[in-house]
Amino acid sequence: MPKLKRTDPDERATDFVESLDRGLRLLQVFGTISGPATLSDLARAADLPRATARRILFTLAHGGFVATDGKLFALTPHVLTLSGSYLRSNQVVTVLQPVLDRIATAAQEISSLALLDGDDVVFVARSSPTRMFSAGLDIGYRLPSFCTSVGRAMLGRLDDAELAARLKAMRREAVTPQTVTDPKKLLAAIIADRAKGYSLVDREAEPHFRSISVPVRRYDGTIVAAINMGAHVDRVPKQELIERFLPLLRDGADDVKNRLL
Amino acid sequence: MPKLKRTDPDERATDFVESLDRGLRLLQVFGTISGPATLSDLARAADLPRATARRILFTLAHGGFVATDGKLFALTPHVLTLSGSYLRSNQVVTVLQPVLDRIATAAQEISSLALLDGDDVVFVARSSPTRMFSAGLDIGYRLPSFCTSVGRAMLGRLDDAELAARLKAMRREAVTPQTVTDPKKLLAAIIADRAKGYSLVDREAEPHFRSISVPVRRYDGTIVAAINMGAHVDRVPKQELIERFLPLLRDGADDVKNRLL
Repeated sequence: MPKLKRTDPDERATDFVESLDRGLRLLQVFGTISGPATLSDLARAADLPRATARRILFTLAHGGFVATDGKLFALTPHVLTLSGSYLRSNQVVTVLQPVLDRIATAAQEISSLALLDGDDVVFVARSSPTRMFSAGLDIGYRLPSFCTSVGRAMLGRLDDAELAARLKAMRREAVTPQTVTDPKKLLAAIIADRAKGYSLVDREAEPHFRSISVPVRRYDGTIVAAINMGAHVDRVPKQELIERFLPLLRDGADDVKNRLL
Repeated sequence: MPKLKRTDPDERATDFVESLDRGLRLLQVFGTISGPATLSDLARAADLPRATARRILFTLAHGGFVATDGKLFALTPHVLTLSGSYLRSNQVVTVLQPVLDRIATAAQEISSLALLDGDDVVFVARSSPTRMFSAGLDIGYRLPSFCTSVGRAMLGRLDDAELAARLKAMRREAVTPQTVTDPKKLLAAIIADRAKGYSLVDREAEPHFRSISVPVRRYDGTIVAAINMGAHVDRVPKQELIERFLPLLRDGADDVKNRLL
Protein backbone atom coordinates (compact mmCIF):
# COMPACT_ATOMS: atom_id res chain seq x y z
CA MET A 1 0.00 0.00 0.00
CA PRO A 2 1.36 3.42 -0.84
CA LYS A 3 1.81 5.93 1.94
CA LEU A 4 -1.48 7.63 2.71
CA LYS A 5 -1.65 11.38 2.50
CA ARG A 6 -4.39 13.67 3.69
CA THR A 7 -5.15 15.43 0.42
CA ASP A 8 -6.30 14.31 -2.96
CA PRO A 9 -4.03 15.79 -5.66
CA ASP A 10 -6.92 16.80 -7.91
CA GLU A 11 -9.17 18.19 -5.20
CA ARG A 12 -11.52 21.03 -6.11
CA ALA A 13 -13.31 23.46 -3.82
CA THR A 14 -16.69 22.49 -5.31
CA ASP A 15 -16.17 18.95 -4.06
CA PHE A 16 -16.48 20.06 -0.47
CA VAL A 17 -19.75 19.04 1.20
CA GLU A 18 -20.22 21.74 3.79
CA SER A 19 -23.21 20.16 5.53
CA LEU A 20 -21.26 16.96 6.16
CA ASP A 21 -18.34 18.89 7.59
CA ARG A 22 -20.69 20.86 9.83
CA GLY A 23 -22.48 17.69 10.93
CA LEU A 24 -19.24 16.05 12.00
CA ARG A 25 -18.23 19.24 13.80
CA LEU A 26 -21.50 19.18 15.73
CA LEU A 27 -20.94 15.51 16.66
CA GLN A 28 -17.54 16.42 18.09
CA VAL A 29 -18.96 19.37 20.02
CA PHE A 30 -21.04 17.00 22.16
CA GLY A 31 -17.80 15.84 23.75
CA THR A 32 -17.14 19.34 25.09
CA ILE A 33 -20.57 19.57 26.74
CA SER A 34 -21.40 17.36 29.69
CA GLY A 35 -24.75 15.63 29.43
CA PRO A 36 -27.74 16.49 27.23
CA ALA A 37 -27.77 19.96 25.69
CA THR A 38 -30.25 22.34 24.10
CA LEU A 39 -30.23 23.33 20.44
CA SER A 40 -28.99 26.80 21.42
CA ASP A 41 -26.10 25.39 23.48
CA LEU A 42 -25.04 23.14 20.62
CA ALA A 43 -25.38 25.79 17.91
CA ARG A 44 -23.29 28.18 20.00
CA ALA A 45 -20.61 25.59 20.84
CA ALA A 46 -20.30 24.52 17.17
CA ASP A 47 -20.45 28.12 15.93
CA LEU A 48 -23.35 27.33 13.58
CA PRO A 49 -26.61 29.15 12.83
CA ARG A 50 -29.48 27.82 14.91
CA ALA A 51 -31.43 26.66 11.85
CA THR A 52 -28.43 24.79 10.50
CA ALA A 53 -27.78 23.10 13.83
CA ARG A 54 -31.46 22.13 13.99
CA ARG A 55 -31.38 20.44 10.57
CA ILE A 56 -28.15 18.63 11.45
CA LEU A 57 -29.56 17.40 14.76
CA PHE A 58 -32.71 16.19 13.03
CA THR A 59 -30.58 14.24 10.54
CA LEU A 60 -28.33 12.82 13.28
CA ALA A 61 -31.45 11.74 15.20
CA HIS A 62 -32.81 10.08 12.05
CA GLY A 63 -29.58 8.10 11.73
CA GLY A 64 -29.79 7.06 15.39
CA PHE A 65 -26.70 9.02 16.47
CA VAL A 66 -28.61 11.52 18.57
CA ALA A 67 -31.62 11.10 20.85
CA THR A 68 -33.93 13.96 21.74
CA ASP A 69 -37.13 14.71 23.61
CA GLY A 70 -37.59 17.73 21.36
CA LYS A 71 -35.75 20.00 23.80
CA LEU A 72 -32.59 18.27 24.95
CA PHE A 73 -30.19 16.39 22.70
CA ALA A 74 -27.76 13.62 23.64
CA LEU A 75 -25.47 11.31 21.69
CA THR A 76 -26.53 7.65 21.62
CA PRO A 77 -24.22 4.60 21.77
CA HIS A 78 -24.81 4.27 18.02
CA VAL A 79 -21.93 6.76 17.68
CA LEU A 80 -19.62 3.92 18.73
CA THR A 81 -20.29 2.20 15.39
CA LEU A 82 -18.06 4.90 13.88
CA SER A 83 -15.08 4.13 16.11
CA GLY A 84 -15.78 0.44 15.60
CA SER A 85 -15.43 1.07 11.86
CA TYR A 86 -12.02 2.57 12.44
CA LEU A 87 -10.76 -0.06 14.85
CA ARG A 88 -11.98 -2.95 12.71
CA SER A 89 -10.52 -1.50 9.50
CA ASN A 90 -7.15 -0.67 11.06
CA GLN A 91 -4.62 -3.44 10.57
CA VAL A 92 -2.11 -1.83 12.96
CA VAL A 93 -4.52 -2.30 15.87
CA THR A 94 -5.35 -5.87 14.86
CA VAL A 95 -1.72 -6.90 14.43
CA LEU A 96 -0.41 -5.13 17.54
CA GLN A 97 -3.08 -6.05 20.11
CA PRO A 98 -1.67 -9.58 20.77
CA VAL A 99 1.81 -8.04 21.02
CA LEU A 100 0.61 -5.56 23.66
CA ASP A 101 -1.05 -8.39 25.57
CA ARG A 102 2.19 -10.41 25.58
CA ILE A 103 4.33 -7.46 26.67
CA ALA A 104 1.89 -6.38 29.38
CA THR A 105 1.83 -9.89 30.84
CA ALA A 106 5.61 -10.28 30.72
CA ALA A 107 6.29 -6.93 32.41
CA GLN A 108 3.13 -6.77 34.52
CA GLU A 109 2.68 -3.21 33.28
CA ILE A 110 0.24 -1.43 30.98
CA SER A 111 1.41 -1.26 27.37
CA SER A 112 -0.14 1.02 24.75
CA LEU A 113 -0.18 1.57 21.02
CA ALA A 114 -0.35 5.12 19.65
CA LEU A 115 -0.61 6.75 16.24
CA LEU A 116 0.06 10.30 15.08
CA ASP A 117 -3.02 12.42 14.29
CA GLY A 118 -1.90 15.88 13.22
CA ASP A 119 0.35 17.15 16.01
CA ASP A 120 -1.23 14.84 18.60
CA VAL A 121 -0.71 11.23 19.49
CA VAL A 122 -3.85 9.11 19.85
CA PHE A 123 -3.92 5.90 21.85
CA VAL A 124 -5.68 3.22 19.81
CA ALA A 125 -5.04 0.04 21.80
CA ARG A 126 -3.93 -0.85 25.29
CA SER A 127 -3.29 -3.92 27.38
CA SER A 128 -3.31 -4.11 31.13
CA PRO A 129 -2.02 -7.12 33.10
CA THR A 130 -3.55 -6.68 36.51
CA ARG A 131 -4.84 -3.23 37.17
CA MET A 132 -8.18 -1.83 36.19
CA PHE A 133 -8.51 0.94 33.70
CA SER A 134 -11.36 2.75 32.03
CA ALA A 135 -11.11 0.95 28.74
CA GLY A 136 -13.49 3.06 26.70
CA LEU A 137 -12.14 6.36 27.85
CA ASP A 138 -8.54 5.36 27.22
CA ILE A 139 -8.99 4.47 23.58
CA GLY A 140 -8.89 7.67 21.61
CA TYR A 141 -7.08 9.52 24.40
CA ARG A 142 -4.82 12.22 22.96
CA LEU A 143 -1.73 14.06 24.07
CA PRO A 144 0.63 16.47 22.28
CA SER A 145 3.24 14.52 20.32
CA PHE A 146 6.26 16.70 21.16
CA CYS A 147 6.30 15.89 24.90
CA THR A 148 5.38 12.20 24.88
CA SER A 149 7.64 9.21 24.27
CA VAL A 150 5.25 7.72 21.69
CA GLY A 151 5.07 11.09 19.93
CA ARG A 152 8.83 11.52 19.76
CA ALA A 153 9.27 7.96 18.51
CA MET A 154 6.77 8.63 15.72
CA LEU A 155 8.05 12.10 14.82
CA GLY A 156 11.33 10.32 14.04
CA ARG A 157 9.71 9.23 10.78
CA LEU A 158 10.22 12.74 9.37
CA ASP A 159 13.55 13.71 7.84
CA ASP A 160 15.52 16.35 9.75
CA ALA A 161 14.37 19.37 7.71
CA GLU A 162 10.70 18.35 7.80
CA LEU A 163 10.97 17.62 11.52
CA ALA A 164 12.52 21.03 12.25
CA ALA A 165 9.73 22.78 10.34
CA ARG A 166 7.01 20.70 11.99
CA LEU A 167 8.32 21.28 15.50
CA LYS A 168 8.61 25.00 14.89
CA ALA A 169 5.04 25.20 13.56
CA MET A 170 3.27 23.11 16.19
CA ARG A 171 1.75 24.37 19.43
CA ARG A 172 4.22 23.60 22.21
CA GLU A 173 2.85 24.39 25.63
CA ALA A 174 4.54 23.20 28.79
CA VAL A 175 2.35 20.61 30.52
CA THR A 176 4.61 20.08 33.54
CA PRO A 177 7.61 22.02 34.94
CA GLN A 178 9.83 19.49 33.08
CA THR A 179 8.27 19.89 29.60
CA VAL A 180 10.85 20.88 26.99
CA THR A 181 9.27 23.37 24.56
CA ASP A 182 12.30 24.76 22.71
CA PRO A 183 12.10 23.50 19.11
CA LYS A 184 15.89 23.21 18.75
CA LYS A 185 16.22 21.08 21.88
CA LEU A 186 13.29 18.92 20.75
CA LEU A 187 14.83 18.47 17.31
CA ALA A 188 18.12 17.32 18.85
CA ALA A 189 16.30 14.97 21.24
CA ILE A 190 14.22 13.34 18.49
CA ILE A 191 17.23 12.90 16.18
CA ALA A 192 19.17 11.30 19.04
CA ASP A 193 16.19 9.05 19.88
CA ARG A 194 15.94 7.91 16.27
CA ALA A 195 19.60 6.85 16.38
CA LYS A 196 19.11 5.00 19.68
CA GLY A 197 15.87 3.36 18.51
CA TYR A 198 13.80 4.49 21.49
CA SER A 199 12.42 7.56 23.26
CA LEU A 200 12.33 8.02 27.00
CA VAL A 201 10.30 10.93 28.32
CA ASP A 202 10.58 11.79 31.98
CA ARG A 203 7.69 13.73 33.59
CA GLU A 204 7.22 15.99 30.54
CA ALA A 205 3.68 14.91 29.62
CA GLU A 206 2.29 14.11 33.06
CA PRO A 207 3.68 14.94 36.50
CA HIS A 208 5.40 12.01 38.23
CA PHE A 209 5.11 9.79 35.17
CA ARG A 210 7.80 8.57 32.79
CA SER A 211 7.52 6.33 29.79
CA ILE A 212 9.62 4.58 27.16
CA SER A 213 8.58 3.95 23.55
CA VAL A 214 9.88 2.29 20.44
CA PRO A 215 8.72 3.03 16.90
CA VAL A 216 6.74 0.35 15.05
CA ARG A 217 7.93 0.00 11.46
CA ARG A 218 6.17 -1.58 8.52
CA TYR A 219 7.80 -3.90 5.96
CA ASP A 220 9.76 -1.09 4.22
CA GLY A 221 11.08 0.49 7.40
CA THR A 222 8.60 3.40 7.56
CA ILE A 223 7.51 4.27 11.10
CA VAL A 224 3.73 3.83 11.33
CA ALA A 225 3.06 3.73 15.08
CA ALA A 226 4.73 3.51 18.49
CA ILE A 227 4.30 1.23 21.49
CA ASN A 228 5.13 2.24 25.03
CA MET A 229 5.25 1.27 28.67
CA GLY A 230 5.34 3.74 31.49
CA ALA A 231 5.15 4.01 35.24
CA HIS A 232 4.93 6.40 38.14
CA VAL A 233 8.40 7.72 38.98
CA ASP A 234 8.20 6.41 42.55
CA ARG A 235 7.52 2.91 41.37
CA VAL A 236 9.88 2.26 38.47
CA PRO A 237 13.33 3.91 38.17
CA LYS A 238 14.53 5.24 34.82
CA GLN A 239 17.16 2.53 34.46
CA GLU A 240 14.54 -0.19 34.82
CA LEU A 241 12.57 1.26 31.89
CA ILE A 242 15.67 0.73 29.73
CA GLU A 243 16.83 -2.59 31.14
CA ARG A 244 13.55 -4.38 31.65
CA PHE A 245 10.90 -2.70 29.42
CA LEU A 246 12.94 -1.74 26.35
CA PRO A 247 13.88 -5.31 25.28
CA LEU A 248 10.21 -6.34 25.46
CA LEU A 249 9.09 -3.36 23.38
CA ARG A 250 11.85 -3.99 20.81
CA ASP A 251 10.94 -7.67 20.46
CA GLY A 252 7.30 -6.72 20.00
CA ALA A 253 8.02 -4.13 17.31
CA ASP A 254 10.43 -6.46 15.45
CA ASP A 255 7.88 -9.21 15.56
CA VAL A 256 5.25 -7.33 13.53
CA LYS A 257 7.52 -5.62 11.00
CA ASN A 258 6.85 -8.02 8.17
CA ARG A 259 3.15 -8.23 8.89
CA LEU A 260 2.42 -4.51 8.40
CA LEU A 261 1.81 -3.57 4.80
CA MET B 1 -34.03 15.15 32.51
CA PRO B 2 -36.99 13.96 30.48
CA LYS B 3 -36.82 10.58 28.78
CA LEU B 4 -35.05 10.92 25.45
CA LYS B 5 -36.85 9.81 22.34
CA ARG B 6 -35.48 9.31 18.88
CA THR B 7 -37.80 11.69 17.01
CA ASP B 8 -38.54 15.33 17.21
CA PRO B 9 -42.32 15.87 17.35
CA ASP B 10 -42.29 18.74 14.83
CA GLU B 11 -39.88 17.19 12.38
CA ARG B 12 -40.27 18.02 8.69
CA ALA B 13 -38.87 16.17 5.70
CA THR B 14 -37.18 19.34 4.45
CA ASP B 15 -35.05 19.37 7.59
CA PHE B 16 -33.25 16.24 6.52
CA VAL B 17 -29.67 16.85 5.37
CA GLU B 18 -29.11 14.02 2.92
CA SER B 19 -25.40 14.64 2.38
CA LEU B 20 -24.73 14.35 6.11
CA ASP B 21 -26.66 11.12 6.32
CA ARG B 22 -24.77 9.72 3.35
CA GLY B 23 -21.43 10.83 4.80
CA LEU B 24 -22.10 9.02 8.05
CA ARG B 25 -23.18 5.95 6.12
CA LEU B 26 -19.90 5.99 4.22
CA LEU B 27 -17.95 6.30 7.48
CA GLN B 28 -19.71 3.20 8.79
CA VAL B 29 -19.06 1.28 5.60
CA PHE B 30 -15.30 1.40 6.25
CA GLY B 31 -15.87 -1.03 9.12
CA THR B 32 -17.18 -3.65 6.70
CA ILE B 33 -14.12 -3.42 4.46
CA SER B 34 -10.76 -4.60 5.74
CA GLY B 35 -7.91 -2.18 5.12
CA PRO B 36 -7.72 0.72 2.66
CA ALA B 37 -10.29 0.73 -0.14
CA THR B 38 -10.78 2.35 -3.54
CA LEU B 39 -13.46 4.91 -4.35
CA SER B 40 -15.34 2.28 -6.37
CA ASP B 41 -15.29 -0.23 -3.50
CA LEU B 42 -16.60 2.35 -1.06
CA ALA B 43 -19.27 3.74 -3.40
CA ARG B 44 -20.54 0.22 -4.05
CA ALA B 45 -20.50 -0.80 -0.39
CA ALA B 46 -22.38 2.36 0.66
CA ASP B 47 -24.75 2.14 -2.30
CA LEU B 48 -23.91 5.69 -3.43
CA PRO B 49 -23.15 7.18 -6.85
CA ARG B 50 -19.41 7.38 -7.48
CA ALA B 51 -19.43 11.18 -7.76
CA THR B 52 -21.27 11.51 -4.43
CA ALA B 53 -18.89 9.12 -2.70
CA ARG B 54 -15.97 11.10 -4.13
CA ARG B 55 -17.26 14.41 -2.73
CA ILE B 56 -17.93 12.81 0.66
CA LEU B 57 -14.45 11.26 0.81
CA PHE B 58 -12.90 14.59 -0.12
CA THR B 59 -14.82 16.27 2.72
CA LEU B 60 -13.93 13.53 5.21
CA ALA B 61 -10.26 13.85 4.21
CA HIS B 62 -10.48 17.62 4.72
CA GLY B 63 -11.80 17.05 8.25
CA GLY B 64 -8.97 14.60 8.96
CA PHE B 65 -11.24 11.54 9.24
CA VAL B 66 -9.96 9.87 6.09
CA ALA B 67 -6.45 9.62 4.62
CA THR B 68 -5.80 8.97 0.95
CA ASP B 69 -2.99 8.74 -1.58
CA GLY B 70 -5.51 9.68 -4.29
CA LYS B 71 -6.32 6.05 -4.98
CA LEU B 72 -6.83 4.22 -1.69
CA PHE B 73 -8.81 5.56 1.26
CA ALA B 74 -8.48 4.63 4.93
CA LEU B 75 -10.00 5.94 8.16
CA THR B 76 -7.62 7.82 10.47
CA PRO B 77 -7.57 7.68 14.29
CA HIS B 78 -9.26 11.08 14.19
CA VAL B 79 -12.52 9.10 13.93
CA LEU B 80 -12.01 8.17 17.58
CA THR B 81 -12.76 11.78 18.55
CA LEU B 82 -16.39 10.94 17.72
CA SER B 83 -16.58 8.01 20.11
CA GLY B 84 -14.68 10.09 22.65
CA SER B 85 -17.44 12.69 22.34
CA TYR B 86 -20.01 10.06 23.18
CA LEU B 87 -18.12 8.48 26.05
CA ARG B 88 -17.22 11.82 27.62
CA SER B 89 -20.76 13.16 27.33
CA ASN B 90 -22.39 10.01 28.70
CA GLN B 91 -22.97 10.21 32.42
CA VAL B 92 -23.95 6.53 32.66
CA VAL B 93 -20.43 5.50 31.60
CA THR B 94 -18.78 8.00 33.94
CA VAL B 95 -20.88 7.00 36.94
CA LEU B 96 -20.73 3.24 36.32
CA GLN B 97 -17.03 2.76 35.48
CA PRO B 98 -15.85 2.84 39.14
CA VAL B 99 -18.69 0.44 40.01
CA LEU B 100 -17.54 -2.01 37.32
CA ASP B 101 -13.96 -1.74 38.58
CA ARG B 102 -15.07 -2.54 42.13
CA ILE B 103 -17.23 -5.49 41.08
CA ALA B 104 -14.57 -6.92 38.77
CA THR B 105 -11.96 -6.79 41.54
CA ALA B 106 -14.28 -8.33 44.12
CA ALA B 107 -15.32 -11.22 41.86
CA GLN B 108 -12.11 -11.49 39.86
CA GLU B 109 -14.27 -11.55 36.74
CA ILE B 110 -14.92 -9.19 33.83
CA SER B 111 -17.90 -6.91 34.37
CA SER B 112 -19.56 -4.89 31.60
CA LEU B 113 -22.02 -2.06 31.12
CA ALA B 114 -24.43 -2.17 28.18
CA LEU B 115 -27.08 0.10 26.70
CA LEU B 116 -29.90 -0.53 24.25
CA ASP B 117 -29.41 0.77 20.70
CA GLY B 118 -32.42 -0.13 18.61
CA ASP B 119 -32.83 -3.91 18.96
CA ASP B 120 -29.17 -4.41 19.87
CA VAL B 121 -27.24 -4.06 23.07
CA VAL B 122 -23.99 -2.12 22.88
CA PHE B 123 -21.20 -2.54 25.42
CA VAL B 124 -20.00 0.91 26.49
CA ALA B 125 -17.69 0.14 29.42
CA ARG B 126 -15.91 -2.86 30.83
CA SER B 127 -13.58 -3.72 33.67
CA SER B 128 -11.25 -6.67 33.82
CA PRO B 129 -9.47 -7.79 36.99
CA THR B 130 -6.65 -9.95 35.74
CA ARG B 131 -7.06 -11.07 32.18
CA MET B 132 -6.17 -9.23 29.04
CA PHE B 133 -8.78 -8.05 26.63
CA SER B 134 -8.82 -6.04 23.47
CA ALA B 135 -10.07 -2.88 25.05
CA GLY B 136 -10.80 -0.85 21.95
CA LEU B 137 -12.56 -3.61 20.12
CA ASP B 138 -14.75 -4.46 23.07
CA ILE B 139 -16.21 -1.01 23.50
CA GLY B 140 -19.00 -0.63 20.98
CA TYR B 141 -19.39 -4.41 20.64
CA ARG B 142 -23.01 -5.28 19.82
CA LEU B 143 -25.23 -8.29 20.23
CA PRO B 144 -28.96 -8.83 19.72
CA SER B 145 -30.87 -7.77 22.84
CA PHE B 146 -33.37 -10.67 22.91
CA CYS B 147 -30.79 -13.40 23.60
CA THR B 148 -28.43 -11.62 26.00
CA SER B 149 -28.81 -11.12 29.74
CA VAL B 150 -28.08 -7.38 29.48
CA GLY B 151 -30.63 -7.10 26.67
CA ARG B 152 -33.37 -8.89 28.58
CA ALA B 153 -32.66 -6.81 31.71
CA MET B 154 -33.03 -3.63 29.64
CA LEU B 155 -36.07 -4.75 27.64
CA GLY B 156 -37.78 -5.03 31.04
CA ARG B 157 -38.14 -1.24 30.90
CA LEU B 158 -41.01 -1.60 28.41
CA ASP B 159 -44.54 -2.31 29.63
CA ASP B 160 -45.95 -5.71 28.70
CA ALA B 161 -47.86 -4.61 25.59
CA GLU B 162 -44.94 -2.60 24.20
CA LEU B 163 -42.57 -5.45 24.97
CA ALA B 164 -44.77 -8.00 23.16
CA ALA B 165 -44.94 -5.77 20.08
CA ARG B 166 -41.23 -5.06 20.12
CA LEU B 167 -40.26 -8.73 20.45
CA LYS B 168 -42.60 -9.71 17.65
CA ALA B 169 -41.18 -7.03 15.33
CA MET B 170 -37.47 -7.56 15.96
CA ARG B 171 -35.19 -9.92 14.05
CA ARG B 172 -34.75 -13.04 16.15
CA GLU B 173 -32.22 -15.44 14.70
CA ALA B 174 -30.86 -18.34 16.69
CA VAL B 175 -27.18 -17.77 17.46
CA THR B 176 -26.60 -21.07 19.27
CA PRO B 177 -28.64 -24.29 19.54
CA GLN B 178 -29.93 -22.94 22.88
CA THR B 179 -31.19 -19.55 21.61
CA VAL B 180 -34.89 -19.01 22.36
CA THR B 181 -36.51 -17.20 19.41
CA ASP B 182 -40.22 -17.66 20.12
CA PRO B 183 -41.63 -14.21 20.99
CA LYS B 184 -44.13 -15.60 23.51
CA LYS B 185 -41.48 -17.52 25.42
CA LEU B 186 -39.22 -14.45 25.36
CA LEU B 187 -42.03 -12.23 26.63
CA ALA B 188 -42.68 -14.60 29.54
CA ALA B 189 -38.96 -14.83 30.34
CA ILE B 190 -38.46 -11.06 30.39
CA ILE B 191 -41.55 -10.45 32.52
CA ALA B 192 -40.34 -13.10 34.97
CA ASP B 193 -36.84 -11.56 34.99
CA ARG B 194 -38.26 -8.12 35.74
CA ALA B 195 -40.07 -9.55 38.77
CA LYS B 196 -36.89 -11.32 39.99
CA GLY B 197 -34.71 -8.26 39.34
CA TYR B 198 -32.14 -10.08 37.23
CA SER B 199 -31.68 -11.97 33.94
CA LEU B 200 -29.63 -15.10 33.54
CA VAL B 201 -28.95 -16.26 30.00
CA ASP B 202 -27.37 -19.64 29.49
CA ARG B 203 -25.48 -20.28 26.20
CA GLU B 204 -28.10 -18.42 24.12
CA ALA B 205 -25.84 -15.62 22.82
CA GLU B 206 -22.50 -17.43 22.66
CA PRO B 207 -21.76 -21.16 22.83
CA HIS B 208 -20.42 -22.31 26.23
CA PHE B 209 -20.98 -18.91 27.82
CA ARG B 210 -23.53 -17.82 30.40
CA SER B 211 -24.06 -14.47 32.00
CA ILE B 212 -26.11 -12.70 34.63
CA SER B 213 -27.30 -9.08 34.50
CA VAL B 214 -29.18 -6.59 36.60
CA PRO B 215 -30.89 -3.47 35.30
CA VAL B 216 -29.43 -0.09 36.26
CA ARG B 217 -32.17 2.36 37.23
CA ARG B 218 -32.01 6.12 37.43
CA TYR B 219 -33.48 8.23 40.25
CA ASP B 220 -37.12 7.71 39.16
CA GLY B 221 -36.82 3.94 38.70
CA THR B 222 -36.55 3.95 34.89
CA ILE B 223 -34.16 1.31 33.55
CA VAL B 224 -31.37 3.08 31.63
CA ALA B 225 -28.66 0.40 31.33
CA ALA B 226 -27.62 -3.05 32.54
CA ILE B 227 -24.46 -4.43 34.11
CA ASN B 228 -23.37 -8.04 33.80
CA MET B 229 -20.83 -10.67 34.67
CA GLY B 230 -20.39 -13.87 32.76
CA ALA B 231 -18.18 -16.90 32.45
CA HIS B 232 -17.45 -19.99 30.41
CA VAL B 233 -19.84 -22.78 31.44
CA ASP B 234 -16.94 -25.09 32.41
CA ARG B 235 -15.52 -22.55 34.79
CA VAL B 236 -18.47 -21.10 36.71
CA PRO B 237 -21.64 -23.08 37.48
CA LYS B 238 -25.04 -21.42 37.11
CA GLN B 239 -25.64 -21.41 40.86
CA GLU B 240 -22.44 -19.48 41.45
CA LEU B 241 -23.63 -16.71 39.10
CA ILE B 242 -26.64 -16.25 41.38
CA GLU B 243 -24.95 -16.73 44.74
CA ARG B 244 -21.65 -14.95 44.19
CA PHE B 245 -22.11 -12.51 41.25
CA LEU B 246 -25.70 -11.34 41.70
CA PRO B 247 -25.22 -9.64 45.12
CA LEU B 248 -22.24 -7.69 43.72
CA LEU B 249 -24.21 -6.56 40.66
CA ARG B 250 -27.20 -5.56 42.82
CA ASP B 251 -25.06 -3.53 45.20
CA GLY B 252 -23.45 -1.79 42.23
CA ALA B 253 -26.75 -0.90 40.60
CA ASP B 254 -28.29 0.30 43.90
CA ASP B 255 -25.25 2.39 44.57
CA VAL B 256 -25.68 4.60 41.48
CA LYS B 257 -29.47 4.94 41.47
CA ASN B 258 -29.56 8.40 42.96
CA ARG B 259 -26.63 9.64 40.90
CA LEU B 260 -28.25 9.03 37.50
CA LEU B 261 -30.47 11.86 36.33
